[in-house]
Amino acid sequence: MNIVCLDFEGVLVPDIWPHVAQRSGVDDLKLTTRDVKDYTALMNRRVEICHTNGITLKQIQTWIAELNALDGALEFVSWIQERYQLILLSDTFYEFVPHFMAYFNYPALFCHSISYNESTGYIEFHLRQDNQKAQAVKALKALNFNIFASGDSYNDITMLQEANSACFFGAPDTVLTDFPEYDNLKTYDELRQKIELFFNGKE
Amino acid sequence: MNIVCLDFEGVLVPDIWPHVAQRSGVDDLKLTTRDVKDYTALMNRRVEICHTNGITLKQIQTWIAELNALDGALEFVSWIQERYQLILLSDTFYEFVPHFMAYFNYPALFCHSISYNESTGYIEFHLRQDNQKAQAVKALKALNFNIFASGDSYNDITMLQEANSACFFGAPDTVLTDFPEYDNLKTYDELRQKIELFFNGKE
Repeated sequence: MNIVCLDFEGVLVPDIWPHVAQRSGVDDLKLTTRDVKDYTALMNRRVEICHTNGITLKQIQTWIAELNALDGALEFVSWIQERYQLILLSDTFYEFVPHFMAYFNYPALFCHSISYNESTGYIEFHLRQDNQKAQAVKALKALNFNIFASGDSYNDITMLQEANSACFFGAPDTVLTDFPEYDNLKTYDELRQKIELFFNGKE
Repeated sequence: MNIVCLDFEGVLVPDIWPHVAQRSGVDDLKLTTRDVKDYTALMNRRVEICHTNGITLKQIQTWIAELNALDGALEFVSWIQERYQLILLSDTFYEFVPHFMAYFNYPALFCHSISYNESTGYIEFHLRQDNQKAQAVKALKALNFNIFASGDSYNDITMLQEANSACFFGAPDTVLTDFPEYDNLKTYDELRQKIELFFNGKE
């Protein structure tokens, strides 16, 4: 009984913040978990930058809604769901991704929550749990599921380490240099083969 | 951050075994978890009855594929998924329900596995975990999710007890008499209102 745990941004949809940076014209918002390892520190910086530049949650949501999923992502998600269970483990926020969830027919998503404080003019993020990706994999293993995990960033490492089998997908050189022990696959076809090989011993 | 945990048979789709009993003409297969409290004992009886009557897994799968989901179930599932996370906690088997999963666009399903041993002529079931429904709710709560649960049978009781809020849906009198502490709702509209009231304090 098998579950595929996938990171979301960078794996099925584009990274959200570089697009926010581009649309807002604020270059400092380009940083992602690929660049900064401490997610809370990264989010605190983003919150401060948004406040300084008068960027609201509503504005960010409007920009995110312009993004399309990656080519082939929907077919890849369907392929997984027809064979295994799929749970998306992402450090995004539920309030960021409703149009993506509708596009993917609402796969299970474990992430965080975000809101906007009108009186302070600050975005407020609520991380559901420290190290939530690895905690989720650990919990699912304790429910006797066999877990394959894939992601592209520093915040995926502990999830990859906790899973029964794992690989990177489209990870940048910085991440690969720090964690050379994982394969880095670049197409959904390669990832399909890797998953099939792990769960069923065939390609 | 909220998850709805739903039983499957009796809540979103008809009970499977009464249909198998009807199509096979074997009355003893009519019993469900609504009648027998010990699921392993119930499944052992079913396995023995199927063997005695020459009923294979493939035959059962063919009969199950004749069943449709309950009226309004798809809309109810979509309503949940547009607002919260949905995880189906069922004592069914992955091999029983592929056409239902396709119909519901593959919501996350935690259940068991079943196969057929050609050489012995016996169906073999593999329960993923004892008391799996309650274990799943406990694990999801430890991931800091807020859980609403609903089901209709004896095998749902510990799930209901473990959840932050819970009710029966279409439970029979036998179950209600033994567990009078839970509301028993009878329509998806009532259940929607109950879920909304719990998570958002409004109907």
